[in-house]
Amino acid sequence: MGGFFGVVSKYDALSDVFFGVDYHSHLGTRRGGLAAYDASGKGLQREIHNIENSPFRTKFENIFNEMKGNAVIGAISDSDPQPLLIRGGFGPYAIASVGLIQNEQELIDEYLLRFGGHFNAMTGGKVNSTELVASLINEKDNIKDGIAFAQEKIKGTMSILVLGGNGKLYAARDKLGRLPMLIGRNEDGFCVSFESFAYKKLGYEDYKELGPGEIVELTADRMKVLKKPGNEMRICAFLWSYYGYPNSNYEGVNVEEMRYKNGEIMARDDMERGIVERLDAVCGVPDSGTPHAIGYSNESHLPFTRPFIKYTPTWPRSFMPANQSERNKVARMKQIPVPELIEGKSLMFVDDSIVRGTQLKETVDFLYENGAREVHMRSACPPIMYGCKYLNFSSSKNEMELLARRIIVELEGQAGLEHIDEYSDSKTERGQKLRKTICEKFNFDSLEFQSLEGVLEAIGIDPCKLCTYCWTGKE
Amino acid sequence: MGGFFGVVSKYDALSDVFFGVDYHSHLGTRRGGLAAYDASGKGLQREIHNIENSPFRTKFENIFNEMKGNAVIGAISDSDPQPLLIRGGFGPYAIASVGLIQNEQELIDEYLLRFGGHFNAMTGGKVNSTELVASLINEKDNIKDGIAFAQEKIKGTMSILVLGGNGKLYAARDKLGRLPMLIGRNEDGFCVSFESFAYKKLGYEDYKELGPGEIVELTADRMKVLKKPGNEMRICAFLWSYYGYPNSNYEGVNVEEMRYKNGEIMARDDMERGIVERLDAVCGVPDSGTPHAIGYSNESHLPFTRPFIKYTPTWPRSFMPANQSERNKVARMKQIPVPELIEGKSLMFVDDSIVRGTQLKETVDFLYENGAREVHMRSACPPIMYGCKYLNFSSSKNEMELLARRIIVELEGQAGLEHIDEYSDSKTERGQKLRKTICEKFNFDSLEFQSLEGVLEAIGIDPCKLCTYCWTGKE
Amino acid sequence: MGGFFGVVSKYDALSDVFFGVDYHSHLGTRRGGLAAYDASGKGLQREIHNIENSPFRTKFENIFNEMKGNAVIGAISDSDPQPLLIRGGFGPYAIASVGLIQNEQELIDEYLLRFGGHFNAMTGGKVNSTELVASLINEKDNIKDGIAFAQEKIKGTMSILVLGGNGKLYAARDKLGRLPMLIGRNEDGFCVSFESFAYKKLGYEDYKELGPGEIVELTADRMKVLKKPGNEMRICAFLWSYYGYPNSNYEGVNVEEMRYKNGEIMARDDMERGIVERLDAVCGVPDSGTPHAIGYSNESHLPFTRPFIKYTPTWPRSFMPANQSERNKVARMKQIPVPELIEGKSLMFVDDSIVRGTQLKETVDFLYENGAREVHMRSACPPIMYGCKYLNFSSSKNEMELLARRIIVELEGQAGLEHIDEYSDSKTERGQKLRKTICEKFNFDSLEFQSLEGVLEAIGIDPCKLCTYCWTGKE
Amino acid sequence: MGGFFGVVSKYDALSDVFFGVDYHSHLGTRRGGLAAYDASGKGLQREIHNIENSPFRTKFENIFNEMKGNAVIGAISDSDPQPLLIRGGFGPYAIASVGLIQNEQELIDEYLLRFGGHFNAMTGGKVNSTELVASLINEKDNIKDGIAFAQEKIKGTMSILVLGGNGKLYAARDKLGRLPMLIGRNEDGFCVSFESFAYKKLGYEDYKELGPGEIVELTADRMKVLKKPGNEMRICAFLWSYYGYPNSNYEGVNVEEMRYKNGEIMARDDMERGIVERLDAVCGVPDSGTPHAIGYSNESHLPFTRPFIKYTPTWPRSFMPANQSERNKVARMKQIPVPELIEGKSLMFVDDSIVRGTQLKETVDFLYENGAREVHMRSACPPIMYGCKYLNFSSSKNEMELLARRIIVELEGQAGLEHIDEYSDSKTERGQKLRKTICEKFNFDSLEFQSLEGVLEAIGIDPCKLCTYCWTGKE
Repeated sequence: MGGFFGVVSKYDALSDVFFGVDYHSHLGTRRGGLAAYDASGKGLQREIHNIENSPFRTKFENIFNEMKGNAVIGAISDSDPQPLLIRGGFGPYAIASVGLIQNEQELIDEYLLRFGGHFNAMTGGKVNSTELVASLINEKDNIKDGIAFAQEKIKGTMSILVLGGNGKLYAARDKLGRLPMLIGRNEDGFCVSFESFAYKKLGYEDYKELGPGEIVELTADRMKVLKKPGNEMRICAFLWSYYGYPNSNYEGVNVEEMRYKNGEIMARDDMERGIVERLDAVCGVPDSGTPHAIGYSNESHLPFTRPFIKYTPTWPRSFMPANQSERNKVARMKQIPVPELIEGKSLMFVDDSIVRGTQLKETVDFLYENGAREVHMRSACPPIMYGCKYLNFSSSKNEMELLARRIIVELEGQAGLEHIDEYSDSKTERGQKLRKTICEKFNFDSLEFQSLEGVLEAIGIDPCKLCTYCWTGKE
Repeated sequence: MGGFFGVVSKYDALSDVFFGVDYHSHLGTRRGGLAAYDASGKGLQREIHNIENSPFRTKFENIFNEMKGNAVIGAISDSDPQPLLIRGGFGPYAIASVGLIQNEQELIDEYLLRFGGHFNAMTGGKVNSTELVASLINEKDNIKDGIAFAQEKIKGTMSILVLGGNGKLYAARDKLGRLPMLIGRNEDGFCVSFESFAYKKLGYEDYKELGPGEIVELTADRMKVLKKPGNEMRICAFLWSYYGYPNSNYEGVNVEEMRYKNGEIMARDDMERGIVERLDAVCGVPDSGTPHAIGYSNESHLPFTRPFIKYTPTWPRSFMPANQSERNKVARMKQIPVPELIEGKSLMFVDDSIVRGTQLKETVDFLYENGAREVHMRSACPPIMYGCKYLNFSSSKNEMELLARRIIVELEGQAGLEHIDEYSDSKTERGQKLRKTICEKFNFDSLEFQSLEGVLEAIGIDPCKLCTYCWTGKE
Repeated sequence: MGGFFGVVSKYDALSDVFFGVDYHSHLGTRRGGLAAYDASGKGLQREIHNIENSPFRTKFENIFNEMKGNAVIGAISDSDPQPLLIRGGFGPYAIASVGLIQNEQELIDEYLLRFGGHFNAMTGGKVNSTELVASLINEKDNIKDGIAFAQEKIKGTMSILVLGGNGKLYAARDKLGRLPMLIGRNEDGFCVSFESFAYKKLGYEDYKELGPGEIVELTADRMKVLKKPGNEMRICAFLWSYYGYPNSNYEGVNVEEMRYKNGEIMARDDMERGIVERLDAVCGVPDSGTPHAIGYSNESHLPFTRPFIKYTPTWPRSFMPANQSERNKVARMKQIPVPELIEGKSLMFVDDSIVRGTQLKETVDFLYENGAREVHMRSACPPIMYGCKYLNFSSSKNEMELLARRIIVELEGQAGLEHIDEYSDSKTERGQKLRKTICEKFNFDSLEFQSLEGVLEAIGIDPCKLCTYCWTGKE
Repeated sequence: MGGFFGVVSKYDALSDVFFGVDYHSHLGTRRGGLAAYDASGKGLQREIHNIENSPFRTKFENIFNEMKGNAVIGAISDSDPQPLLIRGGFGPYAIASVGLIQNEQELIDEYLLRFGGHFNAMTGGKVNSTELVASLINEKDNIKDGIAFAQEKIKGTMSILVLGGNGKLYAARDKLGRLPMLIGRNEDGFCVSFESFAYKKLGYEDYKELGPGEIVELTADRMKVLKKPGNEMRICAFLWSYYGYPNSNYEGVNVEEMRYKNGEIMARDDMERGIVERLDAVCGVPDSGTPHAIGYSNESHLPFTRPFIKYTPTWPRSFMPANQSERNKVARMKQIPVPELIEGKSLMFVDDSIVRGTQLKETVDFLYENGAREVHMRSACPPIMYGCKYLNFSSSKNEMELLARRIIVELEGQAGLEHIDEYSDSKTERGQKLRKTICEKFNFDSLEFQSLEGVLEAIGIDPCKLCTYCWTGKE
């Protein structure tokens, strides 16, 4: 994953983009970069840093002495260095992109065969995805046609932000709007952002959320639509369930609010099941389970407590001892329990989702060791049954790593996979079997998943516009 | 303020102390240090780093190549570099201390006059408090008598941790036990800590909380009491209200639990006042108001929401731009609102305390700008009426900076200060006047402070053992 | 300018290339990089660092944890980051290059027009020269043909070092052998280097100096000539006069020895002129004038002294204060005089060359202020009359910055430039005029330039093989 | 060893001291520090850095934002951190010192016993020598008496520089003037320095070289002598032979000039011996043998050549690989040979001195491997027979590490040590034996040491004023 932020303004835009990109730090941990266009002097400038060991702001704190410009873009990335400066047939430009190219290898081969051109490669020989996008853009005569062509050719999801050699910004949301892309405005110009809170915090107001596949051109004075949005949308429902930032809105729906509502719905269902009375407290698996648990508490009046608290005063990414036993120690050391909130209690735990289930066992064992009487578990979304092929957020190499799939195969072999719909649904026998088996494996007193209907209700937009592939397998 | 952690063990203790000190990072931001005693080789070793721009762990990550020892101590500090290595009449030792010496100048003058000795000074000429403590210890023939003598001479609060040239640890809690000091134990030895969660997380078990003025000597095999605890105790009540870490227990009382209970009491009082019905949600001023607000919600069934969320993925201490307008921008940028949770809502805000009130106005104005219908404010403790002279946690140079005092003087001049007790108490006319005046000044729809009785009930230990000086002026 | 070093070996070659590239640090100050091919695992790897503020070794000291391989190349550069990893039609490879492409713009335009391909650009939009070379290589079906094609298309000077995706090295000296390129050999494999001393120091022996335009392929076991050398050579004579490293040999001629001989010839000429008797000492303008001055002393028996000594214990590139008056102070502070060796003395100063003459005036004034009786100046090469268009070592934007040209125009206007040959030659009237005018301008007691014949004699190889364009204008 | 520099001025003195201390970088490699007195604000300020891995200038480049003052002192040190800020009976001051305290342990014990005071210790428990000096100063009522008392009590050598809390400088040269201490003056004030070139380069003029044991007080306006110099002087003769900087003058004698003269005398002696004719060149063991070799060449007309050249473009202190075999490689990699200047040549090598002889063997073997015909060796001073007890510059733990002593004991056992005078003198039989034995051991074709008379002649001041203890054993 990754994020981006760009501004075109009457004045120097570097400070806004510096902070705006920094507000996307939750979306990537490996590379950060900035590119600026300085009409009065240096033209296009660029700087990229490795942010694995210190945060974006620290790595770029000298940037104000080195770069300036009325138009600036930046990106945070989990993989490829960007933005890139590209020099193609219609002049130089800077480009950043976020997404996933399914047909990467085909596009590379096609390019190399057809043109005899070349790519810069990274360690291991991988081609930078953003350079691949640029190679497609360059096949056309201008940026607009190039972006449109690139999105046509790319299978997958690709949001593109271009800073032209003319000082204009070009923003293109991915074809089916799986990821968000918003335009903000202030007195002096426009900005483009993945997260809405980033620009609001910087004093910009909501101007427009781009539609699926929409392409716009931005100058300090106006936004011009270069390509109208498509009719179909498939925005990722998991943005709300898990990886969107709480302060952001996507398609007008705030993330934090959705999570409260989602928790309320789970509570409502549990109250119907008559399970709430026997519990002492509801707790979130920190941090992403917390808002779902708050909603659960607000609806059920079951007290909300925090039996695990992260130790945040020291920054978690700074220290990675070479020694493996020290590393394991570090990993466990972030979460600190409050034994008084565990001992003798019947606790309802809410997690954002259950993907591979790798850490669940350790958590539950720890709770019982600390004297918990009962441990109930809720997933804030339906069972993950399919690996994401549009964004790869689950980073699964193999669908068989998914806990729910593994259980199904355990229960009735590969044949069971033909009944995934039933297994998802707690109202079927197979659904009950799945839940019961996991309970036994992990020693839960009860386990439930938010229903598909529950998630859709909590999000509240037209379900046709949502991608729920990882839960339903439906495209 | 500051914190410390020490271990004496059969094996190398550096890793435990490295992580144990790191868990005290919330107590100090300027200097961190470690000292070790290596019986087999280098003897006493020491390293101190400036931690203003990067956290303790980062600054000490190479320490494992440089230092080792079966007995190790470390400290985090807001002021003086420590631990120090001291060479006095009875040989070298390492020393760390936490507290406040009221009669610092007298002790320095006395030492310099009596002995013709000297201190190393810091920039500006200030003497390191820990060196001053050491100078007192050295007046006696051995560490035990020295520590006892130092605590006798020092007016104020002084917890002392010494690593002797013999490889033993000496731990001394301050005379009236204003600050905590706990001993933990594992199979291989003992540890000393300010925060109890620090050693539990590292696999030590509670062994003993030192009593007021108690002094103990620790080797890997046993703890020996060198000086019995005194009868009187005055542990700081504010540890629970504000600056203790949620996971810690002091005098057996967990901080997080106390805060929930404290919030519950405030809710109970508000329910009696009939104010809860008109509200939409209760919220904590992040982060320290949050657990009080959770308790309030749990008791009142008023929904708990988070209209402000900190942006934590990038570390807040790393970047301080030279430019002042950039600095102001940074300060505001940490707290990010969720407008959907503010607009049109009647909100109850709970803060840990109201000291100078400097940021309250800005927060309330922001809420109204974002469309809040009503803003009610609760302080989780009584009005701060006296500057702390035992620990100086409020860092007030001048008692007239305290909001409550300022209001009193505003209302009836210096004479009003003779009625502080009444002003504190919401049940008196003066108490009502104080609250009403603040409400008008800050545009609150209502304001209340937790009552003294409420705080004492929430803590739950014998009130005689608590210092409530900042609220009551009683020693 | 820049330098490179590469090794292909039976064993890990990283350490040798790390040190070998470091030995080219005198040839570039801006970027350093390494690329390795690891047959057993990661394939092609690459790392590039900015070396403007700390030396190559410091920036790459962690490389041993990150990279390994039996075939490794590295480069130091004054301009473009390299080596690059390139993915083209015949698979990935790493490439480094040193030289100057005169027809850069044409080649870029041609590529972009013909193919619709693209380049990655650097700040300001400039295309990386090494990527441009790679784009030419990729037009052919294999590395050998590609390199040959690139050298055919490039006007200028281009030495190329390629590390193939097959783990083989490809080394190609520039068409006319203007720059050196040598192959060394040890028991385990081969190396390629710009400077001969670099590999000798690492235990390799001279194996072969590539001829002009020669291309070879290297594996650990054997060297295979892919393209035979051309007949014509134009190696840069200035390598010996100025920028080659004293320990290196080019075309079999050692640099330090050439400089002694060059100084001896100048002394011989001065002895004939009867000027030596009136002098007290001969001195080099540090550091590059020193060996010429040693040769002068050895021949003339005029004592050699060091009236200026550089302060080397602190590293010269580390500190650049923002404040301009501090910067000027720094610049002057490197050279420290020994007043006792100046006062009352008649001194002969030898500099490697006189290009723009910008610092000469200041030096001479300083000597007179310190009581020098006479100051005589010798340039170790003929007057620089033409800007270098093959290597651009003089970094002159404009030939009119050249001191000799400026004097000529001053003396008789643009028309004078038709008599450059005469001005060069001290035996003509115009030659005498030029020297006399400079003497007056700079307050020298005498000035002479090494004659063209003198330089050629000192180098000692066939003059047809040498480029003397900057002195004679002859290609 | 170590060095210092201080300024008191009408204007801010930080920049001058920053550069002045940096010019003492050749005298110490471990700690650097600065202390300033700012009359208008912060009073005494101090900053100390570890300079083991990067040079003084780099470590202090931010100092201009942090410190200022009209009076500033600084120090470079091979051992203890300094300057220290000390707070004693008569107020705070900053102090730096250079020298060796022979009776360190006695002074520490006496202080701790008499006063019950304390020292801050360093890792391992060692007391900082400068703090020990301060503890002595503090026994008196004022700085002047304190410094005089300290120098009376200290056995050994101790130069002291104090920056008073009143903004005045106090400079005290060691009792017997073993080390230099000079006062410079410019329009705005005074400076104190170890090396004379440091202040000349900064625009100060020679004002006065302090006499042995002299103490002066400096303000911007005047120098006041607090204690007159003693009659006896024993300045270290080795300053000229080896560790003084070439540009400096001590007692009016320039170092570089002395070395030329010293080399001339050696040449004169060799010419009498008739050895010069058979030689091809004379060479210095870099860098400190070089000026002696230049003098030798100037006198004998034997060509001076440089068969070893250091690779200086990359800084030698930056890289210390953990791996031992890599470390050895690094050590050897600094010196690079010019084989053409070695092969087939008869070479005279001049080294500054022969102490332990540890690297000589390796050098000679290398020369023979590279084809040298003959290798002759000259030491620019007499045989080192006694370990230095005044300055410890030879860092010898044990006199038996001295090569000459080892040979003597080898030749005739401990009894031989009674004939050290004879062994030193080449005109005796024992002297010849010593030289012949070393020649055989190291494979020299001839070996000679500069005679004591030769060194004294080259220095040229009254021999009674020189310490020649390491050569003669005479105090």
